Amino acid sequence: MTVKARIFVTYKESVFDPQGQAITDAVQSLGHPEVEKINVGKFFDVQLDPATKSVAQTVSEISEQLLVNFNLETYRYELLEEQQ
Amino acid sequence: MTVKARIFVTYKESVFDPQGQAITDAVQSLGHPEVEKINVGKFFDVQLDPATKSVAQTVSEISEQLLVNFNLETYRYELLEEQQ
Repeated sequence: MTVKARIFVTYKESVFDPQGQAITDAVQSLGHPEVEKINVGKFFDVQLDPATKSVAQTVSEISEQLLVNFNLETYRYELLEEQQ
Repeated sequence: MTVKARIFVTYKESVFDPQGQAITDAVQSLGHPEVEKINVGKFFDVQLDPATKSVAQTVSEISEQLLVNFNLETYRYELLEEQQ
């Protein structure tokens, strides 16, 4: 069996998001005053076999080992439905 | 009123995702044979006021003007609940 988990990585609330600020400025200057703020983030769609290890454990381990910089970033994840 | 839309940007199915492949290889070599594949993407959390323009229209316009490279990428979006 294979399941898919989506891990969302974002800056911590306390960390300035320079890319998001630059994109917000650019979008507003393109004529979108209705846009108030844009924040950016990454996501990882992880296809995995939960037979030997739980999804929660795998997600936690690979986030700590590789995917997330805990000095600046935080993450959460959700299971994806099969059709996505 | 302010609403929040999350725009997901991913490579098209037909486009090779080199970063995803590199991350998959790295995770597997760190001792995670349970991970079969990882794909990466970006997302944009857009806070906007839909009074003058619909969310769908704003999302479509800023995706075309700035956020998405339609040669390589595709996007979809969803509305976020307030607590997220």
